[in-house]
Amino acid sequence: MAVAVDPALQNRARLLVKCPDKPGIVSLLSTFLHSHNANIIDSSQFSSDPTNGTFFIRIEFNCDNLVMKRDDMEQQFAELAAAHEMSYSFHYKAVRQRVAIYVSKETHALMELLWEWQNGDLDMEIAVVISNSDVARPMVEALGIPYYYIPANKDIREQVEAQQIRLMKEYRVDLLILARYMQILTPNFVSHFEHRIINIHHSFLPAFIGANPYKRAFERGVKLIGATSHYVTNDLDEGPIIEQDVERVDHRNDVQELKKIGQKIERRVLARAVKWHLENRVIVEGNKTIVFH
Amino acid sequence: MAVAVDPALQNRARLLVKCPDKPGIVSLLSTFLHSHNANIIDSSQFSSDPTNGTFFIRIEFNCDNLVMKRDDMEQQFAELAAAHEMSYSFHYKAVRQRVAIYVSKETHALMELLWEWQNGDLDMEIAVVISNSDVARPMVEALGIPYYYIPANKDIREQVEAQQIRLMKEYRVDLLILARYMQILTPNFVSHFEHRIINIHHSFLPAFIGANPYKRAFERGVKLIGATSHYVTNDLDEGPIIEQDVERVDHRNDVQELKKIGQKIERRVLARAVKWHLENRVIVEGNKTIVFH
Amino acid sequence: MAVAVDPALQNRARLLVKCPDKPGIVSLLSTFLHSHNANIIDSSQFSSDPTNGTFFIRIEFNCDNLVMKRDDMEQQFAELAAAHEMSYSFHYKAVRQRVAIYVSKETHALMELLWEWQNGDLDMEIAVVISNSDVARPMVEALGIPYYYIPANKDIREQVEAQQIRLMKEYRVDLLILARYMQILTPNFVSHFEHRIINIHHSFLPAFIGANPYKRAFERGVKLIGATSHYVTNDLDEGPIIEQDVERVDHRNDVQELKKIGQKIERRVLARAVKWHLENRVIVEGNKTIVFH
Amino acid sequence: MAVAVDPALQNRARLLVKCPDKPGIVSLLSTFLHSHNANIIDSSQFSSDPTNGTFFIRIEFNCDNLVMKRDDMEQQFAELAAAHEMSYSFHYKAVRQRVAIYVSKETHALMELLWEWQNGDLDMEIAVVISNSDVARPMVEALGIPYYYIPANKDIREQVEAQQIRLMKEYRVDLLILARYMQILTPNFVSHFEHRIINIHHSFLPAFIGANPYKRAFERGVKLIGATSHYVTNDLDEGPIIEQDVERVDHRNDVQELKKIGQKIERRVLARAVKWHLENRVIVEGNKTIVFH
Repeated sequence: MAVAVDPALQNRARLLVKCPDKPGIVSLLSTFLHSHNANIIDSSQFSSDPTNGTFFIRIEFNCDNLVMKRDDMEQQFAELAAAHEMSYSFHYKAVRQRVAIYVSKETHALMELLWEWQNGDLDMEIAVVISNSDVARPMVEALGIPYYYIPANKDIREQVEAQQIRLMKEYRVDLLILARYMQILTPNFVSHFEHRIINIHHSFLPAFIGANPYKRAFERGVKLIGATSHYVTNDLDEGPIIEQDVERVDHRNDVQELKKIGQKIERRVLARAVKWHLENRVIVEGNKTIVFH
Repeated sequence: MAVAVDPALQNRARLLVKCPDKPGIVSLLSTFLHSHNANIIDSSQFSSDPTNGTFFIRIEFNCDNLVMKRDDMEQQFAELAAAHEMSYSFHYKAVRQRVAIYVSKETHALMELLWEWQNGDLDMEIAVVISNSDVARPMVEALGIPYYYIPANKDIREQVEAQQIRLMKEYRVDLLILARYMQILTPNFVSHFEHRIINIHHSFLPAFIGANPYKRAFERGVKLIGATSHYVTNDLDEGPIIEQDVERVDHRNDVQELKKIGQKIERRVLARAVKWHLENRVIVEGNKTIVFH
Repeated sequence: MAVAVDPALQNRARLLVKCPDKPGIVSLLSTFLHSHNANIIDSSQFSSDPTNGTFFIRIEFNCDNLVMKRDDMEQQFAELAAAHEMSYSFHYKAVRQRVAIYVSKETHALMELLWEWQNGDLDMEIAVVISNSDVARPMVEALGIPYYYIPANKDIREQVEAQQIRLMKEYRVDLLILARYMQILTPNFVSHFEHRIINIHHSFLPAFIGANPYKRAFERGVKLIGATSHYVTNDLDEGPIIEQDVERVDHRNDVQELKKIGQKIERRVLARAVKWHLENRVIVEGNKTIVFH
Repeated sequence: MAVAVDPALQNRARLLVKCPDKPGIVSLLSTFLHSHNANIIDSSQFSSDPTNGTFFIRIEFNCDNLVMKRDDMEQQFAELAAAHEMSYSFHYKAVRQRVAIYVSKETHALMELLWEWQNGDLDMEIAVVISNSDVARPMVEALGIPYYYIPANKDIREQVEAQQIRLMKEYRVDLLILARYMQILTPNFVSHFEHRIINIHHSFLPAFIGANPYKRAFERGVKLIGATSHYVTNDLDEGPIIEQDVERVDHRNDVQELKKIGQKIERRVLARAVKWHLENRVIVEGNKTIVFH
């Protein structure tokens, strides 16, 4: 599939670096980039502790003829990184991430992603949509996106996941988005996509971990309900949180209404988390995230 | 202590009623009030289920010469209530609730209450302040409010609570506000003041029940922190929730900063809950509240 | 077009009343409804001033066999209303309002309405969509809704509006929603649909009345941008406000980004305003609204 | 007055730079700081336009023995700045800004500032409080802060301002905070303190510029009210906005209630704006602000 990109963006890239904190790192990195005639457009940094902590930085830069120069640049950076114990990654705006969206019967989160994508807010290729239901097929195929209906339940989990993993490879998927995909994933599946599966949970975690959060929110009588987008790990609803939001409810709202109000929160929380991931704004550290806005 | 009240408010009252839902209740109540020349100023109702549910109503009314008429009115209402299985209460705006505020070393929640009270936002008499520290004494006594410093810890809990219960009686206290009073209360103490103790918990319950919520919020990496005001029951942090609110935080905020941000949330959440309680807007039903705004 | 309605809702109605405030009105109305065996499900009232003010009430009720009884009920109510200077209206949940949506090239507000409508959140018939562009045709016709592309500009305003008025009659439209319809309406057009045209303005009114609000918000350097849904009157952007909301922005957001952020606000503000109108929660009084939540 | 500062903070400083954007600036600055053994703790930047725009950066750094080294550092930086057309400023955390708070009869904004200051949230010296009323004297003098009661009205404006300017000099005031000081300032006064006077306006600017914003908000029937903190310029309520916030209101709120709700917004908006100014997070550019969070 050909990727149309604004030619001006061919020269835009982002560099993420993590290393032990010590004086001089910003100088080192900015001097390196300047030596390649790159102009730093945006830069955000965080240190877990200025003395003996870990240093994180996200640098967005422009560089003329980047396509021609990037291999050299990366090669030279590898040496600098080795000398300073840096782990790092380069991301090129011209290379859009390829995304698979997983969905079940409820399509509100999927629809929001499709809408934001069509509106130019989510800089990604939607490579494929996977579902254990056929409801979303028309709206997905209408946009020219392949749709796979793969019935799933806990008895056939292994073979279903095997098929899904094959599809992820076939479609060269970078990021998996669980847009209300109501199936448990096995550790094996998760291990294939570390920090590359984003889920939307329909509660303000860590409140109401697990099933039926709206019902339990109703029973507890909370005055705000929420949604949480997080990376998927092997601990259910315990992965690193990317974004959360809430909305006010009251005693008049029954479970059904909480669900409807919650869907609106889920839509925007997931869309934000995906957007930030695609813009390489999210760094996972331990079980937490650093999100550079 | 003499209570100065705007004479126009001598005629203002609120009637709360709870009864089995059935057609005709609003008619019954409004006709009763009209027959006493009362004018309904505001009315809010809720039914847990229109068929066979429980019906709740809060009526605010004006009635000329209320002081002279209220005994008669209450007496007649008792008959009507008995005939329709109503539990009910009359509240007169001229009779301010008498409040005891409990506080420990952190005074932010107390200060907010004092400020709102001086500003006319909290319609109450502050009868007494109880503390297991002496820090708040100057600001409290400067306002002419009695202050009792009662050191407390779990070894002397029983005798401390006995003294506190005596003081609540001596000062004829209607409502106890725990404005960050960091002591566990015994079931015996709580049983003396059912649905009359309001606490502020420094988390968005049911997340982070118990001790050190800001530390645990930091460790979990949540993106919003909150506070919850609730009635105290014998189950720690499990009582009926009156009000909650949250504020956005990020990876840069350490525990100390979460605490400072949280204090601002605690201040406004507790002040709102107290205000609504004083205006008889809060009805406890099971372990939940109905709050009529 | 046949209207499928949950049979249980055939018996649900709303009564809106406005009259001079005086004691006994609630009693009068509730006794009237009870005499017709109607059960009051919800009731909200407001008085502009308890002495000599105007009284407003919205009563939602259930009544067995409402379809058969409603003519009698309305006839009898007319007498009571006349005796007490009441203006009033009955609204039956089984009779869905018929809506026309007007849109231009930007379809985000239309899409949100279509989504909420499909999701069951907006209790209306979408009778027709009118546009001065053809972009939205596919998504509208895919849902079986008639779509009229009527090119419009100020030179042909009169004949365009004449055609639109004919269509509104032909489709028996109750409510017109301007979902970012970028044309000025004449006083003649507006006069046909008093308090029945809802617009979404892309600013937090009264800030940035008129054209290019996002550009002007950018130039002024505001830290929040907003959207406002209001009834259309002859004074541009001056009609009674139904709902407003805002979102945080900062110095990094250019006009294009403000527009994208603003679209999300516009979507939810318009959807809420329409929902409340359809539920007969909005009463216009002078140039303001009373919204009963 | 002796200033007690955590010794660890003696080594903390901030550098603000503004210059024409071009590649290599971050490298230049970070290399300069590194050459002085300074460790960059936080860094935020903004470019009005990557090609031919203006570049802004705020760098927070630690440097051992800063007190001894700062003169040398500043001297050397002057050369670098001259070579690259930089305007800049160094700010040392050990040197607290000296603040004058101006207040009238309403003390809510003053009280919030005093509270946040006592709580350690506002890193400033309160040098003096100036008021055209005597109400706030007790609470101010109780904290050991000088209080000047200077009656003011438009007839004696010139002599009042002359006295105030003398006091600002006498107390070596860096920042003036108008915490609801209800007097117009002359261009002469303002010119003495460019971008050093912070005001809180009781509306969501640019809505309701000028007098009586709550009354006008009530009359317009807005659904949210707000407050705006901005630097004072000669154009009334038109200066660069630092922070804004809003809160929801409805038809039941009269002007008096809007005012009370508004006071809570004013308190937090002013406190945030002052905090950010004190932390050197706010840069004025034209009639807008860049706020580095």
